[in-house]
Amino acid sequence: MTVPDTLGGIGETAALARIFPRLPSAAAQLLGPGDDAAVVAAPDGRIVITTDMMIHGPDFRLAWSSPRDLGWKAAASNLSDIAAMGASPTALVVAIAAPADSAVSLLEGIADGLREACSALAPGCGVVGGDLSVSHTLTIAVTALGDLEGRDPVLRSGAQAGDVLAVSGSLGCAALGLRLLFERGVDASGEPDAAAAASVRAEHPDLIAAQLAPSPSIADGVAAAIGGATAMLDLSDGLAIDARRLAHASGIGLDFDSSRLGEDPNLALAGGEDHALLATFPAGAALPGGFRAIGRVVTGEGLSVDGSAFDEQVGWDPYRGWNGGAG
Amino acid sequence: MTVPDTLGGIGETAALARIFPRLPSAAAQLLGPGDDAAVVAAPDGRIVITTDMMIHGPDFRLAWSSPRDLGWKAAASNLSDIAAMGASPTALVVAIAAPADSAVSLLEGIADGLREACSALAPGCGVVGGDLSVSHTLTIAVTALGDLEGRDPVLRSGAQAGDVLAVSGSLGCAALGLRLLFERGVDASGEPDAAAAASVRAEHPDLIAAQLAPSPSIADGVAAAIGGATAMLDLSDGLAIDARRLAHASGIGLDFDSSRLGEDPNLALAGGEDHALLATFPAGAALPGGFRAIGRVVTGEGLSVDGSAFDEQVGWDPYRGWNGGAG
Repeated sequence: MTVPDTLGGIGETAALARIFPRLPSAAAQLLGPGDDAAVVAAPDGRIVITTDMMIHGPDFRLAWSSPRDLGWKAAASNLSDIAAMGASPTALVVAIAAPADSAVSLLEGIADGLREACSALAPGCGVVGGDLSVSHTLTIAVTALGDLEGRDPVLRSGAQAGDVLAVSGSLGCAALGLRLLFERGVDASGEPDAAAAASVRAEHPDLIAAQLAPSPSIADGVAAAIGGATAMLDLSDGLAIDARRLAHASGIGLDFDSSRLGEDPNLALAGGEDHALLATFPAGAALPGGFRAIGRVVTGEGLSVDGSAFDEQVGWDPYRGWNGGAG
Repeated sequence: MTVPDTLGGIGETAALARIFPRLPSAAAQLLGPGDDAAVVAAPDGRIVITTDMMIHGPDFRLAWSSPRDLGWKAAASNLSDIAAMGASPTALVVAIAAPADSAVSLLEGIADGLREACSALAPGCGVVGGDLSVSHTLTIAVTALGDLEGRDPVLRSGAQAGDVLAVSGSLGCAALGLRLLFERGVDASGEPDAAAAASVRAEHPDLIAAQLAPSPSIADGVAAAIGGATAMLDLSDGLAIDARRLAHASGIGLDFDSSRLGEDPNLALAGGEDHALLATFPAGAALPGGFRAIGRVVTGEGLSVDGSAFDEQVGWDPYRGWNGGAG
């Protein structure tokens, strides 16, 4: 029986040497990994920057997510934040902290996921630097850079009464995938279980992938900006929570058309981790890319569905939504 | 008796509202926290970027470091990596993961430390964005941006035989501070102890500060670039380890003058976390800022001291140097 190499066994330098060849290169990279810092082209004279951390336990379970899923999702969720500004992602830096007894293949898989997500979702974007640390809790922190290519950023605050409310991407699928995992990706005692998760994933590949390895339409961020979007954000905490943020920032109200929210409008509104783009466009504008209308911007404040106020507090708060388990 | 607010008790939105006013603002900020991403000026057309994570246990002990120390050190260590490229730090994004039962004052203290470090070490640099998560393990991930202001970055690979080897900052003080904490900042059973640490800090404020809240001379990075530095790096893992990296990247050898390495040259060489800048300058050049000569660049490879080969493997590997304790 072969014992796999561990991070503690081979050390940081050897681990980095195993990871580097797997990382995606960035077209904007002027100086890559290996020095104190990287240098990235910023031809616009401005740079868009966002950071997001994924933590074992509240954000993922190793019994459910493959290392490749983790790298993919860490990239995808940050790329989506760049897209939501109307920018084109150019580069990532990735800090990973893992237990010393982790197999090196864990890091290799994360690197593979980062590469595949960049290639599929934002070709030309790559990893220009990072940091490797030891921790009891597997943690992946990604910072993404984006290029506005001469355009104004699309903020949350620009929606105006009369605009069309539109979304690019699926609503509620990631939440449904998570529900399936909690219901059926567990063993008899309710603990996350890899075999059970594999079984439910084989049965519902799209729903589970929406949760574990989402594929937001990154290019639709730039398409929205070019197409005249007046406001935009990434749906990470659920449509209702995030739409309220857009409404509040813009000083307007948002009315959803329930017939546009799929079979289960409540699921779509509660959602969570959709990583779809929510945007507003001037009335009558042709909706670009994969955007479809789901409602309209109205005077007033807060949310309504088919004209009736929607005040339910549904969605995700990291400090309140976690029960402490990992698995 | 008043129970302090916890992150889990007040939730993410309220916690962010408590932190934001304490964060330093960045002169280069075009759009700050509150949208999907921030926008930072990059007038040079290039951006320097580095990321570094601090983990409770291997990187710090809460019994020894105040929240303010943590924010300060997280900023300082990243600012130093930007300085080591010859760039001027412009902006930070900060991701923090903390246990849900953490006091909100922990985050407030970290924010204060970030602000004070930016103000003291890199005026004009500030925090433009971040992320707040829950984790069993307190984790602080900082990404820093820097502006090359039209200059070439100073790489590790440019040293040439005949150059002067110079350092800006103290050598070995951070390691000595850590040794003092391990020896005397502990209780009778050897566990990190806040009262014992406070006592040793009162007695050796500079050595303990060098470890817990270092003050690298960030401005000397730009001074070195303007002053003609041929190569430069930040000393984070110890002078011997980091000097070998510079020597290897440049394809040269480095010879230290032991009389320039302080009272204990071995301590200076082993070091760790000095966050001093090591740079090489053409022979005869006036050394800028706080740089002082400690040796010279020679043909060949590796390190020597007073002309005798120095092959000892001393320094820090995160996957090998940690015994698993936290405190």
